[in-house]
Amino acid sequence: MKLAIVGATGAVGHELLRVLERSPLEYSELQLYASPRSAGTKLAFRDGELTVQAMPDGPIPADLVLASAGGSISQAMAPVWVEGGATVIDNSSAFRYDDQVPLVVPEVNGEAALKHSGIIANPNCTTAIAVVAVAPIHRRYGVRRMIVSTYQATSGAGQKGMDELLEQTRAVLGGGEAAHSEFAHPIPFNVIPHIDVFQGNGYTKEEMKVAWETRKILGDDSLQISCTAVRIPILRTHSEAITLELERPATPQEVRELLSTAPGVEVRDEPAQKLYPMPLTASGKGDVEVGRIRESLVFPGGIDLFVAGDQLLKGAALNAVQIAEYLQQHGAVARR
Amino acid sequence: MKLAIVGATGAVGHELLRVLERSPLEYSELQLYASPRSAGTKLAFRDGELTVQAMPDGPIPADLVLASAGGSISQAMAPVWVEGGATVIDNSSAFRYDDQVPLVVPEVNGEAALKHSGIIANPNCTTAIAVVAVAPIHRRYGVRRMIVSTYQATSGAGQKGMDELLEQTRAVLGGGEAAHSEFAHPIPFNVIPHIDVFQGNGYTKEEMKVAWETRKILGDDSLQISCTAVRIPILRTHSEAITLELERPATPQEVRELLSTAPGVEVRDEPAQKLYPMPLTASGKGDVEVGRIRESLVFPGGIDLFVAGDQLLKGAALNAVQIAEYLQQHGAVARR
Repeated sequence: MKLAIVGATGAVGHELLRVLERSPLEYSELQLYASPRSAGTKLAFRDGELTVQAMPDGPIPADLVLASAGGSISQAMAPVWVEGGATVIDNSSAFRYDDQVPLVVPEVNGEAALKHSGIIANPNCTTAIAVVAVAPIHRRYGVRRMIVSTYQATSGAGQKGMDELLEQTRAVLGGGEAAHSEFAHPIPFNVIPHIDVFQGNGYTKEEMKVAWETRKILGDDSLQISCTAVRIPILRTHSEAITLELERPATPQEVRELLSTAPGVEVRDEPAQKLYPMPLTASGKGDVEVGRIRESLVFPGGIDLFVAGDQLLKGAALNAVQIAEYLQQHGAVARR
Repeated sequence: MKLAIVGATGAVGHELLRVLERSPLEYSELQLYASPRSAGTKLAFRDGELTVQAMPDGPIPADLVLASAGGSISQAMAPVWVEGGATVIDNSSAFRYDDQVPLVVPEVNGEAALKHSGIIANPNCTTAIAVVAVAPIHRRYGVRRMIVSTYQATSGAGQKGMDELLEQTRAVLGGGEAAHSEFAHPIPFNVIPHIDVFQGNGYTKEEMKVAWETRKILGDDSLQISCTAVRIPILRTHSEAITLELERPATPQEVRELLSTAPGVEVRDEPAQKLYPMPLTASGKGDVEVGRIRESLVFPGGIDLFVAGDQLLKGAALNAVQIAEYLQQHGAVARR
């Protein structure tokens, strides 16, 4: 199998290489693509380095393309790559709501990936992180309502987002004023309840993605989901406070036990030992940390919990590679 | 009227002086008290300065005491000060759940302050900020369930909390590791879902304070309230994502209009102009910013909103002085 990464020089591209170094995915060749501006860049990979090429105007000579170059490039080019014989795992939102395109978190609905027509969508990072914890609960207890408040890192806006946080924090600590270009307002020591564009209903697209995508991944349109998506001044890992109303009552201990064997989840829930999910401990980790599991005070038999997941990994690069591994294990990559 | 501040050298004490400089409160004398260690410290006030005295072991020669020196000092000394003839407005949690002690946010339940027996409690900062926005909605539409996720500043842990954030952020930016003493874990570029001590039900005391105190201030024990309280790396102003289930359906526009005339509230809700509540704009402001007002996606006719309030002001010093003003306006200070 020939593998290609499009958008290799971005923050997710960087993580894709790190994840591939540890992945059992088998491939005969790995090509890296980015914008013409980045062509010639050398990126470390295993013991050597790989040279980034300019993305071609036409098909990509690969069996599997991991695309992470933004929605407009995916929108325009993914069908061309598919036409040329490649299967595309797309990290953008371009195809996520297309009925013909599976939206996949392998631990939750890996089998959906097998029904692809060339494109498989990787979910929004906030959704992917929530759903590995919520899916097992939904299957056993039936989630009726889900209320999510997010604490999202600047890396959700890529390497430039992290750079802006660091540079502008230095400026503020030096007595200056913070500037901003990646975010709608200065981010150092601030909180911005605005990620992606506002929709007609007053929610942002980021907030609606959590509702739309969770329903699609869980295959249940009856789920009522609401989200408040908030950018905060941290570097990586999105945290989320989640309240669940359940069809069948659960106890915190039952949920703790259920999640302790759930794939992709690390239960970290010993408050007396000050163990709970945090970006400090979840960053760089493939699993999503889940803790603060307690009975809801507004939904009898419902559950409140707190999750923290590295959105460059489970929220993006790791999930994409896991989809690729799943396809390969099931002989569902090759289309040439 | 003779006025005294106990805990004058702390973060709230500092804000009390700034708020008093702008307050219409009339007093003939202002005495500042703190621990013996701080005795002799001079603090700027209006055009001059005041000298801090060591808190006496017995009564304080004042008619009104604004106490902000921590729960254990209030617990031990407030009854002594009351016995000596003073009325005490206490910023700690020591007396908040005492049925004989009014818990007051003047815009919401000022009249409760008039029924005091010597001590009036100032609510927890997170509660005070939420309740100025929620009370008018509760009165018109009837809140049934309230789900709160907080984004709390380090100043909730006083001046030392802010200092730790600044110093440790500098350490991290310099390539070092962050230490911690005021918080359970390093706070720079981190999120800590742990404020105050854990209770038997898995919630922290900070989270339960929001439930207990909101019910007491609104005088409605039927309210179902749940909170997740989270410390984030910012200096001042607590933000909160709030979801409300209502008895009678409201539209976002009705709520916007209702809150536009509510005391203590500044509606800041023009997403298209990137106007919504943020610590950057709410810090230093007496009013609580309220925005992101939209229909709940999980409770038909319910409302989601986002608030940001300076917790050293409305969440502490300003609210205490407003209680004092209310008492004076109603001739309810003097007990000597």
